[in-house]
Amino acid sequence: MLKPHPLDPLTALEINSAAALLKEHESGNSIHFKNIELLEPAKKQLKKYLRDERLGIKHGSDLARRVSVLYYYRGTAKLFRAVIDLSARSIEEIQSLNPRYHGQADMDEVLEVRDVCINHPKVIERIKRFKLPESFTVVCDTWPYGRDSAAATRRLAQCFLYAKDRSHPGANSYDNPLPFSPIIDYITKELVDIIELPCGDDHSTTTDLEYIPHEAKEWHHDLQTKPKRTDLKPLTVHQPQGPSFAIDGHLITWQKWRFRLGFNWREGMVLHDVTYDGRELFHRLSLSEMFVPYGDPRTPYSRKSVFDVGDIGAGVAANNLALGCDCLGLIKYFSFVISDSNGRPVERPNAVCMHEIDDGIGWKHTDNATKQVSIVRSRVLVLQTIITVGNYEYIFMWHFDQAAALHYRIQATGILSTVPISPGYTVPYGTNVNEGVMAPYHQHIFALRIDPAIDGDGNSFVEEDSVPMPFDKDNPVGVGYITKKNTLLESGYSEARPNRVHKIVNPSVINKVSKRPVAYAIHSPQKEMLLAHPDSWHAKRAKYALQPYWVTAHRDNELYAAGDYTYQSLPEDVDPASMTAPPRGDLASWAARRDNVDNEDIVVWHSISLTHNPRPEDYPVMPCETMTVSLKPSGFFEQNPALDVPQSTQRANRSVLYEQFKLSQEDSGRSCCEAKTSKI
Amino acid sequence: MLKPHPLDPLTALEINSAAALLKEHESGNSIHFKNIELLEPAKKQLKKYLRDERLGIKHGSDLARRVSVLYYYRGTAKLFRAVIDLSARSIEEIQSLNPRYHGQADMDEVLEVRDVCINHPKVIERIKRFKLPESFTVVCDTWPYGRDSAAATRRLAQCFLYAKDRSHPGANSYDNPLPFSPIIDYITKELVDIIELPCGDDHSTTTDLEYIPHEAKEWHHDLQTKPKRTDLKPLTVHQPQGPSFAIDGHLITWQKWRFRLGFNWREGMVLHDVTYDGRELFHRLSLSEMFVPYGDPRTPYSRKSVFDVGDIGAGVAANNLALGCDCLGLIKYFSFVISDSNGRPVERPNAVCMHEIDDGIGWKHTDNATKQVSIVRSRVLVLQTIITVGNYEYIFMWHFDQAAALHYRIQATGILSTVPISPGYTVPYGTNVNEGVMAPYHQHIFALRIDPAIDGDGNSFVEEDSVPMPFDKDNPVGVGYITKKNTLLESGYSEARPNRVHKIVNPSVINKVSKRPVAYAIHSPQKEMLLAHPDSWHAKRAKYALQPYWVTAHRDNELYAAGDYTYQSLPEDVDPASMTAPPRGDLASWAARRDNVDNEDIVVWHSISLTHNPRPEDYPVMPCETMTVSLKPSGFFEQNPALDVPQSTQRANRSVLYEQFKLSQEDSGRSCCEAKTSKI
Repeated sequence: MLKPHPLDPLTALEINSAAALLKEHESGNSIHFKNIELLEPAKKQLKKYLRDERLGIKHGSDLARRVSVLYYYRGTAKLFRAVIDLSARSIEEIQSLNPRYHGQADMDEVLEVRDVCINHPKVIERIKRFKLPESFTVVCDTWPYGRDSAAATRRLAQCFLYAKDRSHPGANSYDNPLPFSPIIDYITKELVDIIELPCGDDHSTTTDLEYIPHEAKEWHHDLQTKPKRTDLKPLTVHQPQGPSFAIDGHLITWQKWRFRLGFNWREGMVLHDVTYDGRELFHRLSLSEMFVPYGDPRTPYSRKSVFDVGDIGAGVAANNLALGCDCLGLIKYFSFVISDSNGRPVERPNAVCMHEIDDGIGWKHTDNATKQVSIVRSRVLVLQTIITVGNYEYIFMWHFDQAAALHYRIQATGILSTVPISPGYTVPYGTNVNEGVMAPYHQHIFALRIDPAIDGDGNSFVEEDSVPMPFDKDNPVGVGYITKKNTLLESGYSEARPNRVHKIVNPSVINKVSKRPVAYAIHSPQKEMLLAHPDSWHAKRAKYALQPYWVTAHRDNELYAAGDYTYQSLPEDVDPASMTAPPRGDLASWAARRDNVDNEDIVVWHSISLTHNPRPEDYPVMPCETMTVSLKPSGFFEQNPALDVPQSTQRANRSVLYEQFKLSQEDSGRSCCEAKTSKI
Repeated sequence: MLKPHPLDPLTALEINSAAALLKEHESGNSIHFKNIELLEPAKKQLKKYLRDERLGIKHGSDLARRVSVLYYYRGTAKLFRAVIDLSARSIEEIQSLNPRYHGQADMDEVLEVRDVCINHPKVIERIKRFKLPESFTVVCDTWPYGRDSAAATRRLAQCFLYAKDRSHPGANSYDNPLPFSPIIDYITKELVDIIELPCGDDHSTTTDLEYIPHEAKEWHHDLQTKPKRTDLKPLTVHQPQGPSFAIDGHLITWQKWRFRLGFNWREGMVLHDVTYDGRELFHRLSLSEMFVPYGDPRTPYSRKSVFDVGDIGAGVAANNLALGCDCLGLIKYFSFVISDSNGRPVERPNAVCMHEIDDGIGWKHTDNATKQVSIVRSRVLVLQTIITVGNYEYIFMWHFDQAAALHYRIQATGILSTVPISPGYTVPYGTNVNEGVMAPYHQHIFALRIDPAIDGDGNSFVEEDSVPMPFDKDNPVGVGYITKKNTLLESGYSEARPNRVHKIVNPSVINKVSKRPVAYAIHSPQKEMLLAHPDSWHAKRAKYALQPYWVTAHRDNELYAAGDYTYQSLPEDVDPASMTAPPRGDLASWAARRDNVDNEDIVVWHSISLTHNPRPEDYPVMPCETMTVSLKPSGFFEQNPALDVPQSTQRANRSVLYEQFKLSQEDSGRSCCEAKTSKI
């Protein structure tokens, strides 16, 4: 078997090996594995390795494959973190964690807790009083117990219950939210409480509510009562000569781009060592965190706040992508493994798909006088992963273009989180989406972690503002404007402004043409950041969500914007004295170090906010809502890097005139609707 | 011949007829036609006609086809506007315009002025002193004389000169900007002045400069010195059963959408009477104006400001689109006619193309417990037009999606406007893009005119802000937020804010599910508006560019945000007393009427701003820069309108696995590169 690359995702063999080593070491203790994850090599060694590799220099010894294992003693709150050197088959260290920190929920215990909840006599009794018709069964969604006070450090699940029509496995349970929420202790599996949900337009609750029937709104294609559209004709994409990309393990090359694909339980898809035409751009690109706070102020909705990356895991939640549905054209799928609660490898098949798309015109010009035309189409390489987190789906994509820009595209789809509302009520912090069903306002705040290497390691983060010149002798008619640059000297954050572009520059490399330092700009629309009060627990736990841009000095293992242990997290500032070893703080604490970040090995963090005040149109399943962040060269190259893309030609692109198609239809004596195969 | 629909674009026959009628009437006078354009019927009659038409009600008599003709007495500054009833073959009125207003530049006179300029002895003499090598010829770009003072009401062209290598008709003249600018009078064709251009980093000029050779940067594909990429494989799009749209003249139906395509010399592509599933959405959608002010404060660059719609015409500048280059797949082209300076029809062939694209996933959900999946792909109908305005190209697209959203997509490409800069200099209001070549900062500010009909004519414009609740007993842990709505009661403008969504609502139609008025929201990123000083002529002439959103009460013929006559426009407020008949003011003056706009027939205007501080990567031809504005249902429907899109299937979508392709390659005994046809 081939030796894995230092950045290759963990293999099943490695997971088995790590689990076996730990079990052997912990013999006598029953281990509840939370996660087994690759510990990437320290950046310094890794960078040397990657640079040598790109230059074709081979080393006698590879970098050690190390993993970290987070685990409980089963049935207890005792949490440990082990570091294991797989190459040496040795356990390097085991830390006992401060009990205020919790491991993420895992699928095995989630399923167990759901069973416990639904089958608990008190829950059964409470459901009974709601008087559901026989045609319904009750299903349970476990939510992280998003903290809304400093108390309650037990690891809890808040369960939201829904009635699902038994007649079809795709029936929309979210159409029938039940008006009470059991709380279960993840460790002891005890029922801690059953909380009555407010169903009017204030904080009051009642235990008298009984099920009121309403017309169902179904998302599943089998269950649509209205006729499907019949006038959508197939559209297919072909690459008769094959794809333009090349693959060597997890190393991908395409149109001067070269990068490594990584994948782990937490961040899901990760990009490593991204270069263009041999020049370094980004050392590591990842979805660091994602926070979903709800705007309904009532208990227990004030605890509806999830760190989808830290509490659940984008890799854990990755979909098995399907040919012709999730991806169209000529598709390469990548499969991975993660670990389960027993330390066994679990497949995440087809968790990432890769393919090319045509993205319209790349560039065009017509000479005004001579009518000469040059035009190229824009081909884009897409890497896509989709996660299902309970009700919601997220689609995460990297789009590589031929002009050396890299675009991070996020799409939100799936089903709104719903709560019950009594007939006749509306609330100002939510939208009624069916009779008895309300979808509260909420936000999705993603943290994109950008570890840059713009032409090398010494990078700076710059605010570049377009600023009107004063109306004076240098600007005699008042039309002049200039750009003003502010380089962040110390780690911290930066605000978004309509006239501002953020750039990552390498101050040591001057563009020969512009005479300015080479740079990549981050283009992202200015959005409202976290709406929760800065003193709220939402804000304290997700400080990264308060500002759109952050810059820190790089330190190994500072990967997660809301900290390593987000589940019911208590931010460090509560009692810093009690902190030992991990956690290693959060983005705000790293930024607060006031490290030098000018011409240093820096990390840039971008918080991307989607304020989602639901529309009825988002229900019973939501059309994709799309956000795009672009990383674009800005004085990195001396000219348009897509200048060498070949001219577009009809010979290659084989388009068809509408009239030509109609003619071919008439020739064949068939109507358009009858045509089953192309005549062209 | 079929009678034209009241909204059909003018035909060649109609243009000939209008010109003939006017020439007959003006016999004895030599007519210089500026434009002949369709006068759409008054909205009241038109709406009745369109509604009846949609209901299948036929009328005995159609609405009159009327045109307006703007013309000069040739060789004079005497400007007239005639209104002609083509149906009755009668001239309804002729107005003599205030001489402070000018017609747009037309292609015939532009070519004439370019010749005059290049061949003027003084210009020849001045060029000679610059000592260009024999291998270059000089070409002339005529720019509207963007006003920077209240004086100079003659109709002028400011000419920018460039040296073009004679060896190829696609040689990049913008790579050699000459350091002087002749001014020509459009009426008399006199050389008014030769202005020396500042070439250092201040306002100073010198007449001593001589040509300094530098390495050329070429955009034309023939002229690339570096090898072209060889690893881009063809990607083709097929619709074997034909397109999903239907066409009846200029009436287009696709996936519940129904609309009419219009086209005119000024706005280019226009959409009329847009409905979805039989419900009215937009009466008329158009690019009303587009302003390009430059940020270089020095004379004469302070006059570099163009109204590309009003000064030139998006229809006039429309490209002849080519199969397989501008459009990929199964394409319907629409051709149109405009008029020339002799009143003759001139074809604009293939000025609009229409086709479908696959736009990724439409919506998806996987049931967490039962693993049931529903997924649909998103098909989009694209209508595209491309204009060349001197150095720049703009791509304008309407994207119709299946979830009832309509997206206006603007792409900027082409060549930067360049100016000379002497060796060793840089300026803070521009970027050096080659030796001796500087591209000044500038903005593109587009005015999208939205004449809405959200479920009928009585519409309102609403600011909807997401606002944190106060930290009090109703919001005990500080996480609550609500939306606050502000309906604009009087015509005026509205600012963009990160927490704000603008909506067009019909207050009389309440969504049964949400219990709120039906609405469409405008989603557009918050951008910096006009950077020129509010007291500058740029600001006075393009007041619409100062605010992102405007609402006015509808009045017929109020179509153009910067007024009807933008060429060297003097805004009305200079001397309102002297104003007679047309012009009819500008957007700011209509907004200032403080008309009631609550539950009225309103027009919404959106100014879309692109601050373009050039990158070296934008030269010698610029990769497309894309902006998108979305008009999305927001409580217009009772549920996801794309719920009836059929499930995606591999049977229809015929995707191919990478491994399957590789296998087929191996089977055929050929390498991937040798494959000339698909084996799949």
